[in-house]
Amino acid sequence: MTAETNARSLYAVILAGGGGTRLWPLSRRARPKPFLPLLGEQSLFQLTLARIAPLMAAEDIHVVADQRHLPLVTQQAPQLIGRKLLGEPFGRNTAAAVALAALIVERPGSDVMVLLPADHWIADERAFRNALTAAARAAHDGSLVTLGIPPGGPETGYGYIVGTSDGATAGARSVERFVEKPERERATELLASPNGAWWNAGIFIWRRDALLAALERHAPAIVGAIKRGLDNGQSLNTIYKSLPDVSIDRALLEPASLKGEVKVVPADIGWSDLGSWNALHAELARRQPAQAGVVAVGHAEDLGSRDVLVHSSGGRLVVTVGLADTIVVDTPDVVLVCAADRAQEVRAIVDRLAQAKETEYL
Amino acid sequence: MTAETNARSLYAVILAGGGGTRLWPLSRRARPKPFLPLLGEQSLFQLTLARIAPLMAAEDIHVVADQRHLPLVTQQAPQLIGRKLLGEPFGRNTAAAVALAALIVERPGSDVMVLLPADHWIADERAFRNALTAAARAAHDGSLVTLGIPPGGPETGYGYIVGTSDGATAGARSVERFVEKPERERATELLASPNGAWWNAGIFIWRRDALLAALERHAPAIVGAIKRGLDNGQSLNTIYKSLPDVSIDRALLEPASLKGEVKVVPADIGWSDLGSWNALHAELARRQPAQAGVVAVGHAEDLGSRDVLVHSSGGRLVVTVGLADTIVVDTPDVVLVCAADRAQEVRAIVDRLAQAKETEYL
Repeated sequence: MTAETNARSLYAVILAGGGGTRLWPLSRRARPKPFLPLLGEQSLFQLTLARIAPLMAAEDIHVVADQRHLPLVTQQAPQLIGRKLLGEPFGRNTAAAVALAALIVERPGSDVMVLLPADHWIADERAFRNALTAAARAAHDGSLVTLGIPPGGPETGYGYIVGTSDGATAGARSVERFVEKPERERATELLASPNGAWWNAGIFIWRRDALLAALERHAPAIVGAIKRGLDNGQSLNTIYKSLPDVSIDRALLEPASLKGEVKVVPADIGWSDLGSWNALHAELARRQPAQAGVVAVGHAEDLGSRDVLVHSSGGRLVVTVGLADTIVVDTPDVVLVCAADRAQEVRAIVDRLAQAKETEYL
Repeated sequence: MTAETNARSLYAVILAGGGGTRLWPLSRRARPKPFLPLLGEQSLFQLTLARIAPLMAAEDIHVVADQRHLPLVTQQAPQLIGRKLLGEPFGRNTAAAVALAALIVERPGSDVMVLLPADHWIADERAFRNALTAAARAAHDGSLVTLGIPPGGPETGYGYIVGTSDGATAGARSVERFVEKPERERATELLASPNGAWWNAGIFIWRRDALLAALERHAPAIVGAIKRGLDNGQSLNTIYKSLPDVSIDRALLEPASLKGEVKVVPADIGWSDLGSWNALHAELARRQPAQAGVVAVGHAEDLGSRDVLVHSSGGRLVVTVGLADTIVVDTPDVVLVCAADRAQEVRAIVDRLAQAKETEYL
């Protein structure tokens, strides 16, 4: 093992800019998904911090968030006060956030950055840390490394990572390509890939120098605009306005995978992106006894329903009678009742309210 | 026409003791169904008063209600202050309330009492008043007269009135018998009765002397206990405790009909007992434009639901997505979400809360 494998060379960049609109009306602009205690008493952001605490010191942890949410960040994680918290003027997708962190967080080029979304759920923390350690080792040769989640089925809501025929080395395998959220038929094909296919959880591990070099190759406009802006003393607001709205997957990982620069570490870690009320329902049902699939958070009474999630944070009693496959969310000012198979459309309601200028509910 | 046909001989007894638990959580012990503005701005009780105002003066109107609700009565109907309001110590069903009113409200025996529930809806007020006038005429010979609602179908939630083969006289027809809430098959048979069958709306018209005499014949225990108690200066609480919990239909109308003492005036008046959230949904859908059967009271947004009632009185925004045949009721402290075909079970939830001593929600 080289010197770089010790924990001091690892640092984390946590992306806490997710809006989580599909978890509206619980997730709001003022307190979006990462800052909500969706599973247990700690917020997803706090759980993300706790999950990596054994791997690095507090001073190695950096957070990128909307600047309006920095007070939430320091309130939920007082140990980060005074550390490098990067406040974005507004969300510009993950490529901008990653490039900004790569440039601003000053670390030796050989240090290994762990990039983590702040709004996911990981049930098996030990397996997660083992996977990160393996990924950090695989990243030492300059590879861009991603964790690959064993697919639970042909889901259309995730990106897929497809392996090459090269064998795995020390738990890491070369990536042939990234596939954007596919149609159902294509997803089924991908699951049958001869060299493996995994869900892309947006968790990446790479040396700082390797990341910066790869950004220069594959996303020169983004990294160049930020560099020039910072050199010229432009405000982050001005810089961000000039950047494209693109994910790090599309801007970097997709082109880099085609050049053989990406590796995947398969990671069976009980991952969920909690990307919808249905996903949260499934995780809650795993964690607590649920009769007929009826899961309640808060004060609730049910009579004869099945496969229902009741989430009451409005302080009220929520009573359900004879429902099936339904989501009920009670908050202090909004009640949502949604057919489970329409949970993706919650975002459309948020869009409609924004258009109607009913911003107090956003 | 005799002297009795003029309006001065008519008086009304309004029964405002209904609990309306099937409209929980809107209908509560502190403000039950009669005192709620379910259709429009006036409460059902206020609408009941307005409906008969053209037929009689305010001093001819009497109200029987739980004594805890007398402040609501006078608040909603200040014109009744100082009139004879009868406060019951607790509800003991309608036979007790009718007998009490028959004894206490001092009117000449030939005066005609109109007995009205305070928690029903009548769309065609003119037809209603015409039916009452016809019924009052039919009552002059001492008959016990009821309005008969043309059945909308073989409903099992109502009592039925079956006519005799005697022809109708001046709009009234002799009643062969009353039938308690029947099974579906029996209800279908009743609809085919050769001499007509009607729903029993609990609206009765009778001379005071005829009512008292009929009570003496068919319900001597009830009327006797009240008389003796009042003569002996017992409290109403003591008297009521000794009375059976029985409806006026069962205590009086059923036996009287078998003796040929009852007449029915068919009354196509747009009646609904608003006996469940589904019944309210149906009335609201008739009164306001409803796309795909989606009816909203209060601040609501819908995306792609059908046959949904949203009733929001909690001041919140209620959002529904992709629901079908569902009732959503939002109040300041309780949210109810109920499958439409289970709306009758709302009462079971109320019972369960009472058993659990969660009285703040009752």
